[in-house]
Amino acid sequence: MDMDPPTPYRYERLADLIVGMIDNGALAAGTRLPSVRAVSEQHSISISTVLQAYRLLEDRGILVARPQSGFYVAGTRRGALALPSVSRPRAKASTVSISGAVAGLLEHVSNPALVPLGCAVPDAALLQSKRLDLALARAARQHGTRYNIYCAPQGDPRLRREIAKRAMHFGHALSPDDLLITNGCTEALTLALTAVAKRGDSIAIESPTYFGLLHTLEVLGLKAFELPTDPARGIDVGALARLLDTEPVAACVLSSNFNNPLGCAMAETDKRSLLALLARHAVPLIEDDVYGDIHFGRERPKPFIALDSGANTIYCSSFSKSLAPGYRVGWIVAGAYAQQVMERKLAFSLCCPVLPQVALADFLESGAYDAHLRGVRRIFEENLGRMTRAIETSFPTDTKVSRPAGGFMLWLELPRRFDSRALFDEALEQGICFAPGDVFSASRRFRNCLRLSAGHTWNHRIEDGVRRLGRLAQALLDG
Amino acid sequence: MDMDPPTPYRYERLADLIVGMIDNGALAAGTRLPSVRAVSEQHSISISTVLQAYRLLEDRGILVARPQSGFYVAGTRRGALALPSVSRPRAKASTVSISGAVAGLLEHVSNPALVPLGCAVPDAALLQSKRLDLALARAARQHGTRYNIYCAPQGDPRLRREIAKRAMHFGHALSPDDLLITNGCTEALTLALTAVAKRGDSIAIESPTYFGLLHTLEVLGLKAFELPTDPARGIDVGALARLLDTEPVAACVLSSNFNNPLGCAMAETDKRSLLALLARHAVPLIEDDVYGDIHFGRERPKPFIALDSGANTIYCSSFSKSLAPGYRVGWIVAGAYAQQVMERKLAFSLCCPVLPQVALADFLESGAYDAHLRGVRRIFEENLGRMTRAIETSFPTDTKVSRPAGGFMLWLELPRRFDSRALFDEALEQGICFAPGDVFSASRRFRNCLRLSAGHTWNHRIEDGVRRLGRLAQALLDG
Repeated sequence: MDMDPPTPYRYERLADLIVGMIDNGALAAGTRLPSVRAVSEQHSISISTVLQAYRLLEDRGILVARPQSGFYVAGTRRGALALPSVSRPRAKASTVSISGAVAGLLEHVSNPALVPLGCAVPDAALLQSKRLDLALARAARQHGTRYNIYCAPQGDPRLRREIAKRAMHFGHALSPDDLLITNGCTEALTLALTAVAKRGDSIAIESPTYFGLLHTLEVLGLKAFELPTDPARGIDVGALARLLDTEPVAACVLSSNFNNPLGCAMAETDKRSLLALLARHAVPLIEDDVYGDIHFGRERPKPFIALDSGANTIYCSSFSKSLAPGYRVGWIVAGAYAQQVMERKLAFSLCCPVLPQVALADFLESGAYDAHLRGVRRIFEENLGRMTRAIETSFPTDTKVSRPAGGFMLWLELPRRFDSRALFDEALEQGICFAPGDVFSASRRFRNCLRLSAGHTWNHRIEDGVRRLGRLAQALLDG
Repeated sequence: MDMDPPTPYRYERLADLIVGMIDNGALAAGTRLPSVRAVSEQHSISISTVLQAYRLLEDRGILVARPQSGFYVAGTRRGALALPSVSRPRAKASTVSISGAVAGLLEHVSNPALVPLGCAVPDAALLQSKRLDLALARAARQHGTRYNIYCAPQGDPRLRREIAKRAMHFGHALSPDDLLITNGCTEALTLALTAVAKRGDSIAIESPTYFGLLHTLEVLGLKAFELPTDPARGIDVGALARLLDTEPVAACVLSSNFNNPLGCAMAETDKRSLLALLARHAVPLIEDDVYGDIHFGRERPKPFIALDSGANTIYCSSFSKSLAPGYRVGWIVAGAYAQQVMERKLAFSLCCPVLPQVALADFLESGAYDAHLRGVRRIFEENLGRMTRAIETSFPTDTKVSRPAGGFMLWLELPRRFDSRALFDEALEQGICFAPGDVFSASRRFRNCLRLSAGHTWNHRIEDGVRRLGRLAQALLDG
């Protein structure tokens, strides 16, 4: 481990060296790493730098920390299945036409008769929102009249204060006045996009990306530039740089962390490079952090806004993936675009329902959210582990599968000739729903890929569904 | 009363004759009209036709029915103050730039320290939503987990069924599948406008009209054609015909009934003429019926959709004016545009919060809404009467004031040299809020007008506020 010359991100260099040693076999799965103190002394770097490197790798699922024992190379790092390929989208902007495919999918994802591997929203039973629901019942019973009003377009002040306080978890200082409450993250993204772009403009996005974003782009008449995206490290900043040199881009929309469907997160250095690049080109960044609270590593990874000194970022998030999809409460931190976003909120939907906001404020004030998050994170991580093992033992052996460090989705890549649409039709007949790959791309790529959701309480029916799906995929490839 | 030749709307001709006799003094305020039977026999028309004419005039506040006695010419028909003039907007489309003025107004309307004459939303205390709030509390407590989901973009099926059933009140058959639930009427209007028009298009609207609509037009980049509007009979269909012959109009947006701020409603014949005209030009009609349930006459006036055989109408409404502003539940019946509207709902905000929808469905199922409506209608009608009397005794004698047949707003017109912006500033200093006239026009007309809201429980403070405002207006005119 040669550590010179020192850089501002020395811990990331150390992390890269460890990954290299794992990849070339020098460090096998299950190996205990040298102690933090030993590495520190051996290489004359601070203990905190070594710890930071180890924790970064823990966050990425590459190392596992065992209390009182140390850090070990994770077993899944060299599992049976490789990671999906880095995407190579075409370099032209695509007019988006996804709504038919999305509607066709949505028709099935909420059908309770199907094995639910298709929907990117956690099951209500898993989320256990009882305490929040009781807060809503109490607010309605005790203060219904008081809140039967239009609130300000920005939303309930107490809820904004509680959300602003939570930004401290990723080291970012927010004031309640920086926030505006929205009808979920979808409205936040719509407000952001309409504030920075107009019909016909092009937006740079990840590839694959969440089909709901593609649908919103389509309805707003925006085109999509799909960026090459690595299933472990996120988008290729170099490719974005080349794009910005040649094409007009109105905005960039990225997941802050654990994007849907890949579950990848960019390293902080890459995030900083990206922010600097966008600032040079005066292109605003819109980030979607709905999965950020569902991190499996020790620390919540920072969203872009926490790294952006230039106020070029519009931050969007919601409680839909971690607590309350039925409440439709999201928020936006629009910075330099706050006035435009507020005017759009007023024009498009005036303000949000008041009592659900009051209930969420009460729930957050009670301090219950952190314990809740610890619970759902553990469940999602376990679900993903179980699902990965079921895939390893049932899907074709050359299937590649993502290794998300957060969220609750897996992305599978099969050989190029594989047709996930054909699998979709077959699976529906057998009572299994999943999301075929082509809905995650404006140019309808990824037909050989699919997304499986692990957002339901794990049980035999789900395990069996994954295995049957794997055997179906094998049969299709053989047939 | 010469009744030949017969027409399909014979009762309306009879009504016009009676109005003519009142206007020329042949029938004085307080006069008892001939009995229904006597008119029927004398003029050889059916009893139901005469009754229909009398009830139409009762609905318009021109006649008053006294049980066991008959119909009388209403006392307010020839009250102290005349009706405002018919508006004469310019014949060109206006680029809308209202957001600054709207924001300036909204800053004050919710300030509880001010006498609340500025806000077009009823006071929560007056609405008495307790029973609805308890339905929400019960739904959250008993079924919170079950509803912690994304519902379909169309909204909760049970709520849609209950709303569809209520359309029978105006004789229109709707299926739950015809409806989509929105975040209040504002989102319904946004979905409708974005489905039928694109940036740069022109929209024909009433003048004066609700400033929220102007703000939405501005943010969507739509221009406004303001139509001449009579404070008793609504827009001038002839003027719209001339406009459509010469200018491209993407859509027409009108209040179904009791428009904000005038409180006027078009006669059914005029509504039918308008629909026929729009159908000939293939221009869709978007109607806003949020005040329709607050009618003071016996029958709920029909919205356009109930008279439109051509399915050229998009119907928008909500519970915000009559029951639950804080719940933000509206709906849209988009007919031929249902698919486009559903795609936009999905793209802009996915779906609405579920528990408030469930609570409203429970409330409607219980049958409590009709009794609730009877109560608020009576309160608003009384409030408007009290406010009109306070205006008559305090405002300058040449003040003109509207005589709404529904809703809870009054529109005042003062001499042309009067400046309602100057009054607004003075009134704020004296702790009184109202809406100055120019925010109700894309071309910023009506500076000599103002809107007062009677949406709060009547009390000495409000009565005193109206009187002080009147004296301030007099002082400004004198000064």
